[in-house]
Amino acid sequence: MNLPQGGYDILLERGLLARAGALLGLDRPGRRTLIVTDDGVPAQYAAALAAQCAAPQLVCVAQGEGSKSFATLQRLLAAMLQSGFGRADAAVAVGGGVVGDLTGFAAACYMRGIPFYNLPTTSLAQIDSSIGGKTAINFEGVKNVVGAFYQPARVLVDPDLLATLPPRQLAAGFAEAIKAGVLADEALLALFERGQPEAHLEEILLRSLTFKKNIVEQDERESGLRRILNFGHTIGHGIESACGLGGLLHGECVGLGMLPMCTDPALRARLTAILELNHLPTRVHFDPDAVYAAACHDKKGGAGKTAVIEAAAVGRPRITTIDNSALRARIEREAREGIGA
Amino acid sequence: MNLPQGGYDILLERGLLARAGALLGLDRPGRRTLIVTDDGVPAQYAAALAAQCAAPQLVCVAQGEGSKSFATLQRLLAAMLQSGFGRADAAVAVGGGVVGDLTGFAAACYMRGIPFYNLPTTSLAQIDSSIGGKTAINFEGVKNVVGAFYQPARVLVDPDLLATLPPRQLAAGFAEAIKAGVLADEALLALFERGQPEAHLEEILLRSLTFKKNIVEQDERESGLRRILNFGHTIGHGIESACGLGGLLHGECVGLGMLPMCTDPALRARLTAILELNHLPTRVHFDPDAVYAAACHDKKGGAGKTAVIEAAAVGRPRITTIDNSALRARIEREAREGIGA
Repeated sequence: MNLPQGGYDILLERGLLARAGALLGLDRPGRRTLIVTDDGVPAQYAAALAAQCAAPQLVCVAQGEGSKSFATLQRLLAAMLQSGFGRADAAVAVGGGVVGDLTGFAAACYMRGIPFYNLPTTSLAQIDSSIGGKTAINFEGVKNVVGAFYQPARVLVDPDLLATLPPRQLAAGFAEAIKAGVLADEALLALFERGQPEAHLEEILLRSLTFKKNIVEQDERESGLRRILNFGHTIGHGIESACGLGGLLHGECVGLGMLPMCTDPALRARLTAILELNHLPTRVHFDPDAVYAAACHDKKGGAGKTAVIEAAAVGRPRITTIDNSALRARIEREAREGIGA
Repeated sequence: MNLPQGGYDILLERGLLARAGALLGLDRPGRRTLIVTDDGVPAQYAAALAAQCAAPQLVCVAQGEGSKSFATLQRLLAAMLQSGFGRADAAVAVGGGVVGDLTGFAAACYMRGIPFYNLPTTSLAQIDSSIGGKTAINFEGVKNVVGAFYQPARVLVDPDLLATLPPRQLAAGFAEAIKAGVLADEALLALFERGQPEAHLEEILLRSLTFKKNIVEQDERESGLRRILNFGHTIGHGIESACGLGGLLHGECVGLGMLPMCTDPALRARLTAILELNHLPTRVHFDPDAVYAAACHDKKGGAGKTAVIEAAAVGRPRITTIDNSALRARIEREAREGIGA
């Protein structure tokens, strides 16, 4: 990742976990390392990393969005403070997007920023969230509203770690790679038309990370181009918020959210088939009012506009600003038909 | 201020407050402005700014370091969230260092960063803390341990606002200007030898801000050169922590802390005379153990080293790393003699 203030390496290779201590300089005598994981991640991953660190301190948080809170943030900061962490010490995330967002933000804040390393263990994090520097916690029910743009100092993507991931979570993460395919990479999308993405895991990871790297390098702070990464996220985020308790995963919602944003029916049909083949849902029943409110944070009934990302063809995304009333009509139509119908 | 990621203007002029709304673009219809002040700042300043904003929201926090807390931070974030602040809205600090540090950190975190403006109302903030991008809150009794490097989008320094500042606070802020003089500006230091710094207020502000701007431009993140700004702060911070309840102000402690760091007796004598002439203390009685512990965060009894900034002459500061045992001996010697004796 090449950025004006200095870039960082993203390493992609099977077996990286076994060499992580040396690769991240965590074996240097006296260097303290906060390792953060959650109770949904196999404990052996964080333990394997700790065994390679000179001065490891392990914190295991509860799995799920609930850990992206001020309470958990303060727990991490207190752990570092009580152990006398200085600016040259480090924090490492061993987990999925929740652990990465939380740990990255803690590293960004502690002493105004200490080195942060990411060792993603889910397909979603390996494909998408572990690079790009978005860190955050949730606040007063709003996702990611408090955080920082804070780039990791190095990211280790070890595909072997996905072996323990439940199949449904694995599939959900692939939705972000399918998104990258629609936005910019026909060959990546075509890989998913063959089914069995596990068989092409390294190529999927490499192509997805390369795509995201290119976008972030051009627009780190999401002032323009980077917003195309929100393809599938406007309605998808609405569905996630509204149906979250119904148990849909983030990636599943992104998959669903992309369909109404395909302006060409042929592309929509192709994408529907790809999602089905890769064990991602294409039908969902939802309350249009709840999805609309969450999609555009509109509490005043239709005033204003919302930016949406539409795709007319593979490699041709477009950022459009539409009236909230038009967004609402679109959501209502999709709700009647259950999206994939 | 010229920085790689884009700089900002620092305006210095009497009467700026009356034009602040237009100068900061806060009068633009629909733009929301969080105005943060504290109950030690004359209420008319924040009110005057609010009257110039299209959509002001005023929050008044309690005066003092206690407001640099997670609780107050969350109060500011909640105020912005509940009013629907977006990335183009703004937060403005109207106060001293506490209000600036707190508001700047809230602006840095909210939606990963919204525009932050600073309108400092104390000599300390106008001379030093309002520029440079250090924002922070305190945590578990440690000052500034949680924060961000986050530059303001514009700083308005209006010397007229100092007219309401109590004389002792005014004098304490000048200690940072005297520091700038010792570090780099003989003419600035000489101004203080004439007494009556109020009579040279604009020149003192201009010279102090120019000095700090030059340092920050060369080392924004305090990885090297910027550390010279800590001249007077090692022992000074220790005295502030240890005697804080005894009522010494930050600037007063910095003044005291510079004296033991003058390695030339003539410079020390000159500086002592300057402090006295400008109503700053030069004698203090303190507990060397408490000051030592706070000065180098040493809880293990003398192991390790601490960086100190020493001056052999005006314009010749030097960063030296000394053994904690040597620092302890120096503090004990100063404690016996009450520093200024």
